[in-house]
Amino acid sequence: MGKPLKQIKLGAFLMQTGHHIAAWRHPEAQADAGTNFAHYADLARRAEAAKFDAIFFADSVGVRSSHLPFLARTARADQLEPLTVLPALAALTERIGLIATASSTFNEPYNLARKFATLDLISGGRAGWNLVTSSSEAEAQNFNFEQHPAHNERYERAAEFHDVVVGLWESWGENALLRDKASGIFYDTEKLRVLNHKGKHFSVRGPLNVARSPQGRPVVVQAGASEAGRDLAGRTAEVIFVAHQTFDDARSFYSDIKDRVQRHGREADDVKIMPGIFPVVGRTLAEAEEKFEKLQSLIDPVVGVSLLSNMIGADLSGYPVDGPLPDLPATNGGKSRQQLLADLAHRDNLTIRELYLRISGARGHQQVVGTPSQIADQLQQWFEEGGADGFNIMSPWLPGGLDDFIEDVLPELRRRGLFRTEYEGRTLRENLGLKQPRGLL
Amino acid sequence: MGKPLKQIKLGAFLMQTGHHIAAWRHPEAQADAGTNFAHYADLARRAEAAKFDAIFFADSVGVRSSHLPFLARTARADQLEPLTVLPALAALTERIGLIATASSTFNEPYNLARKFATLDLISGGRAGWNLVTSSSEAEAQNFNFEQHPAHNERYERAAEFHDVVVGLWESWGENALLRDKASGIFYDTEKLRVLNHKGKHFSVRGPLNVARSPQGRPVVVQAGASEAGRDLAGRTAEVIFVAHQTFDDARSFYSDIKDRVQRHGREADDVKIMPGIFPVVGRTLAEAEEKFEKLQSLIDPVVGVSLLSNMIGADLSGYPVDGPLPDLPATNGGKSRQQLLADLAHRDNLTIRELYLRISGARGHQQVVGTPSQIADQLQQWFEEGGADGFNIMSPWLPGGLDDFIEDVLPELRRRGLFRTEYEGRTLRENLGLKQPRGLL
Repeated sequence: MGKPLKQIKLGAFLMQTGHHIAAWRHPEAQADAGTNFAHYADLARRAEAAKFDAIFFADSVGVRSSHLPFLARTARADQLEPLTVLPALAALTERIGLIATASSTFNEPYNLARKFATLDLISGGRAGWNLVTSSSEAEAQNFNFEQHPAHNERYERAAEFHDVVVGLWESWGENALLRDKASGIFYDTEKLRVLNHKGKHFSVRGPLNVARSPQGRPVVVQAGASEAGRDLAGRTAEVIFVAHQTFDDARSFYSDIKDRVQRHGREADDVKIMPGIFPVVGRTLAEAEEKFEKLQSLIDPVVGVSLLSNMIGADLSGYPVDGPLPDLPATNGGKSRQQLLADLAHRDNLTIRELYLRISGARGHQQVVGTPSQIADQLQQWFEEGGADGFNIMSPWLPGGLDDFIEDVLPELRRRGLFRTEYEGRTLRENLGLKQPRGLL
Repeated sequence: MGKPLKQIKLGAFLMQTGHHIAAWRHPEAQADAGTNFAHYADLARRAEAAKFDAIFFADSVGVRSSHLPFLARTARADQLEPLTVLPALAALTERIGLIATASSTFNEPYNLARKFATLDLISGGRAGWNLVTSSSEAEAQNFNFEQHPAHNERYERAAEFHDVVVGLWESWGENALLRDKASGIFYDTEKLRVLNHKGKHFSVRGPLNVARSPQGRPVVVQAGASEAGRDLAGRTAEVIFVAHQTFDDARSFYSDIKDRVQRHGREADDVKIMPGIFPVVGRTLAEAEEKFEKLQSLIDPVVGVSLLSNMIGADLSGYPVDGPLPDLPATNGGKSRQQLLADLAHRDNLTIRELYLRISGARGHQQVVGTPSQIADQLQQWFEEGGADGFNIMSPWLPGGLDDFIEDVLPELRRRGLFRTEYEGRTLRENLGLKQPRGLL
């Protein structure tokens, strides 16, 4: 009786005018959404009013395609830098978490540690860092690399990067700041910890020149599904954002990660697994399908084939669009994603066109087209049967797709006792049900 | 006869609880100001209501002193990262410029180009970048360096860094974004410029994945007073923030920079020179002096000697505090600052204690203690006689010191027709009277 002990956690994935590749062409879409701050302010307020745990910004540090016919037809490069947008949204919101993606391959840990600690301070404890290693050569070429650093090397660097950042966040003990005007003593320097890190990739002395942040440390989010990614996540992640095609995949990933977490001496509940969900909501199934087809019809074939080529790490423009997916060469990029797509094509016997139509919408994430009750059923199943602790809602277009989810699906989840009606806590950590780290000093 | 053609430009230098080293001990100071976002939001709104051109945030990427007795007695490390705070302030203001300091030595140009372009977009054209090369070993040690990179090397990197950033800001021509839903064409790729920079320090392909920003490009600010710093400023700076002790120094610097600017084919007015001013305002001179002495009396000698040692690049703790300044070894840090301080001590025959008291307040900047009319006289002289285009107001303590300036000095400047009563433009560039760069494409 009363509400269940555990409820679904929800993130709102805010990407320009929506997650669907042709969303910007939707009649109700704001085509300039990518660089329109008012658009994001409006979305953040809607998501907060709906009691989402967090808003989530993806990122890349480059224009991932140099194929001009593709580039000309997408809104891809018309975006804002997440760690600059989220502080602005922090000033306009009070309770919702703020998760920004930032690359461990193309940043310095001291800089990122300062920025996330600052975001945590100005938001009153709502910051999260989605650590990615970046997967494209186009990004590497903006940072002095001829070729992209190899997958294993990126993950090795990421692991050390993470430890340096967390170490810097522990520079100041919980009561290090005395600020005693009478004696003139500002800090208790007994509670100062100089990191003195010397590792393979980084030498970082410390301490951080930003005070201890309200959450002790910002929430660490990860998205890697490869072996190296899972290994790092098992040791360090507190939230995992992941793409699955089927419930079996989700359950197997969920159980693997929870095992790894426990093998690292953590509790299973110390990490929240939140797959991406691409929901298209209709009052009837037919209405939902019609909404989806409307978006699909806006995909230019040039965009579809290029998008697939880019995601799969191989140029498919020379192959017949109505023929099968050819065998793929191994790439240095996101290995797990290539495998997911090849498996999908093989399983459902898809042509290149069918595959690009399949992935252009949800782009590897679970696509759910249906009524509020059908969508709630699926979320409930994944949540209750060991596939997810929550979900990242990748709205097909914005704001309309998010509105549909908020107005139609959330009431259904609440009727079932599966989603909150009010925030439980003040910080992102509290709302997610994650432990507050105690200071080392 | 109407307002004069040119008026004074004003920046509000916002540093924790004020520029005076002991400001945090002031009875009216908010001791936690450094990490208190509400404090900065309040200051930004006050400065905007007063029609300041910009607020200005200094920065360092490390705790500059490892001398614990000093560290314990200052608020130094209790700060926020500027490029994370200014976006949040952008969301709460509408007209005031937002200038953040960021180091060319410890960042990558692609990252900074994105962040400043984003700040420019979300603020509607109010972003400024204060390019610094960073001057302390404590900072270098947070970024894999055993020793700080040499002065000339830092400036060589800074020059190339600047060119890459500005080049990236020119990735998209003025009308590159078509966003035509009907044809499906988002970009005019004819107006896309791929930088393809390959230089000594950087290889950066581009293009930037952020749209062209409202100002064409954010305003470039610099503060270097060394030969290398002046050379870079002459070619690239649009605003110069500088420290002077005397009007003669100010005039000589002003004329040197304007010459250099013209030698680089720019117009003298393409750069605004804004020395720092540390004003202590009283209704009478005696009241102003009393306010100043109250702050000076709060400086712990441990802090004074350490501060001076740190600024001058040599440990003075072993020398008699009431003896003269010893001859100084050459350092790799801020050469120009060391020279300024040695000249000051020599000119006025100061002991170490007298020197630290002298510089603890204004820290190398022009200190003006007096009535509103006396302070206005000095600003007017510097402005009208070739010493300055404007000033950065380094309030001794905050918010009180800024309030004094706004309530007492600004009305006096306005009576003289020397400062605006309303913003002239919408962007920082427009308010400063700087040209809007036209897109290359």
